[in-house]
Amino acid sequence: MKTIAYLGPPGTFSEEAALGWGGPEDQLLPLASIPAVVTAVETGAATFGVLPLENSLEGSVTTTLDLLIRETSLRVSSELVLPVRHMLATRPGLQLHQVQVLHAHPQALGQSRRFVERCLPGAATVAALSNSAALTDALSDSRPAAAITTRRAIELQSAATLAHDIQDHPNNQTRFILLGAEDAAPTGQDRTSLCFAMPENQAGSLLNALQVLAQARINLTRLESRPAKEMLGDYIFLADIEGHRLEPHVAAALQRLQEQTTFFKVFGSYPRYRPPTPDAPARLSSSPS
Amino acid sequence: MKTIAYLGPPGTFSEEAALGWGGPEDQLLPLASIPAVVTAVETGAATFGVLPLENSLEGSVTTTLDLLIRETSLRVSSELVLPVRHMLATRPGLQLHQVQVLHAHPQALGQSRRFVERCLPGAATVAALSNSAALTDALSDSRPAAAITTRRAIELQSAATLAHDIQDHPNNQTRFILLGAEDAAPTGQDRTSLCFAMPENQAGSLLNALQVLAQARINLTRLESRPAKEMLGDYIFLADIEGHRLEPHVAAALQRLQEQTTFFKVFGSYPRYRPPTPDAPARLSSSPS
Repeated sequence: MKTIAYLGPPGTFSEEAALGWGGPEDQLLPLASIPAVVTAVETGAATFGVLPLENSLEGSVTTTLDLLIRETSLRVSSELVLPVRHMLATRPGLQLHQVQVLHAHPQALGQSRRFVERCLPGAATVAALSNSAALTDALSDSRPAAAITTRRAIELQSAATLAHDIQDHPNNQTRFILLGAEDAAPTGQDRTSLCFAMPENQAGSLLNALQVLAQARINLTRLESRPAKEMLGDYIFLADIEGHRLEPHVAAALQRLQEQTTFFKVFGSYPRYRPPTPDAPARLSSSPS
Repeated sequence: MKTIAYLGPPGTFSEEAALGWGGPEDQLLPLASIPAVVTAVETGAATFGVLPLENSLEGSVTTTLDLLIRETSLRVSSELVLPVRHMLATRPGLQLHQVQVLHAHPQALGQSRRFVERCLPGAATVAALSNSAALTDALSDSRPAAAITTRRAIELQSAATLAHDIQDHPNNQTRFILLGAEDAAPTGQDRTSLCFAMPENQAGSLLNALQVLAQARINLTRLESRPAKEMLGDYIFLADIEGHRLEPHVAAALQRLQEQTTFFKVFGSYPRYRPPTPDAPARLSSSPS
């Protein structure tokens, strides 16, 4: 049995990710913040921690990036990409045209603007702390209230779905990572996440770093910069590359890359996420054992 | 006379930036949001708009980046870097040990954690909508209250400074840009901001883009990625380069770069900000006329 910590409360997309990784015998541990998830794993309160890393609309979760860069030596052992599906839910019996108050997390509200403008033009909106709390707030509201929430929260709180997939963008996805004491063993279909800083932030130095990867025929699947928290203009680059850090050509390239950098840290190597195909079982092949 | 729109209310760091650009004859226009500042300039309600672009601790202001990428054809005509100095202020007569309530914008509170933990360990914190509103809230609080705020807000609201420079990091700086109908004429010491997307997000394509710049001996001073709002893994890169888009070697490199991209947009060329030296006058040399 393992314990998987995530950003709670139950019913959030983070819980959905945690459920994707956990088996029926595992225990899920909802915590109040992303740093709390990291601390839980570092102190043994949890075996693994689920962190949101990036969203296709909003970009990177900077809290997660900064924790990986500076605070923890835990490793990334798995990744998972979840579609973000926003649902409109309420207490059983209430109909769409009766809704006067809409509870929603500000981000979910911003991502469902078209639906809300068209189908709930007169509703007063109330900010909630999470997609799950939005439903709790709506169900306990004395007025005719609905919530923008998740499928999982609707299931947990026995609410009624008024509308599904109300998000503006069809390609709204969030990528989660699983943090643990060690990263994953090579599978032949892996990804490695790392960060580095260059002696000078000029075209030449970053170019040299990317050339090391290109010469080794290693694909870069993501490149992101974060401020080094020193002066403006000093950046730490976060990169995802294809391959496992233990594969010889990757190990050699990382070694050459490290020699060019003033700061270098590998977050871990792990199987690349592949969405389940209709025929495949729903369990993830990248689930840690 | 020109009108300069900024993210209000008066007393914010954005107002400080606007004051750095405006002359005594100019009018400042505080607005409620960053998109409102852009719309004010587009519709002629303001001549220029001040936008926060990046902070040395927090990173880029993604709202500003996304507006530049997708929504506006306004040009960047100037830049300005301001040190972020957080001050503790209250009504005249109240002393530090008497403070029981602390009003603060959550970001300012997060950046002043050490001071607050040490010098105000028992104070209850109340979230404010801006650094300026924090002081307004504190001054109207019936309890012994103080605020984390700006020098400018203290001056405007005739408050008393209890402590200065309470920020944790000495190198906390924010870079602002001035948006207008046109960018600036070449000065020989310029910077150009642009964004582009590559046909495939692999090491090779970004490498080719950076090589175009390196071959033209153009320094890259900043590289940032933002999600393209399509699938995860599609990015738009924002770059700052040294030089003016009208300089022949820059124009040629930008032309070659554009040929390699699927999306390409120059936000503008403008004089590189140089902090005022002790001997120099406080007015900015990069001020638009």
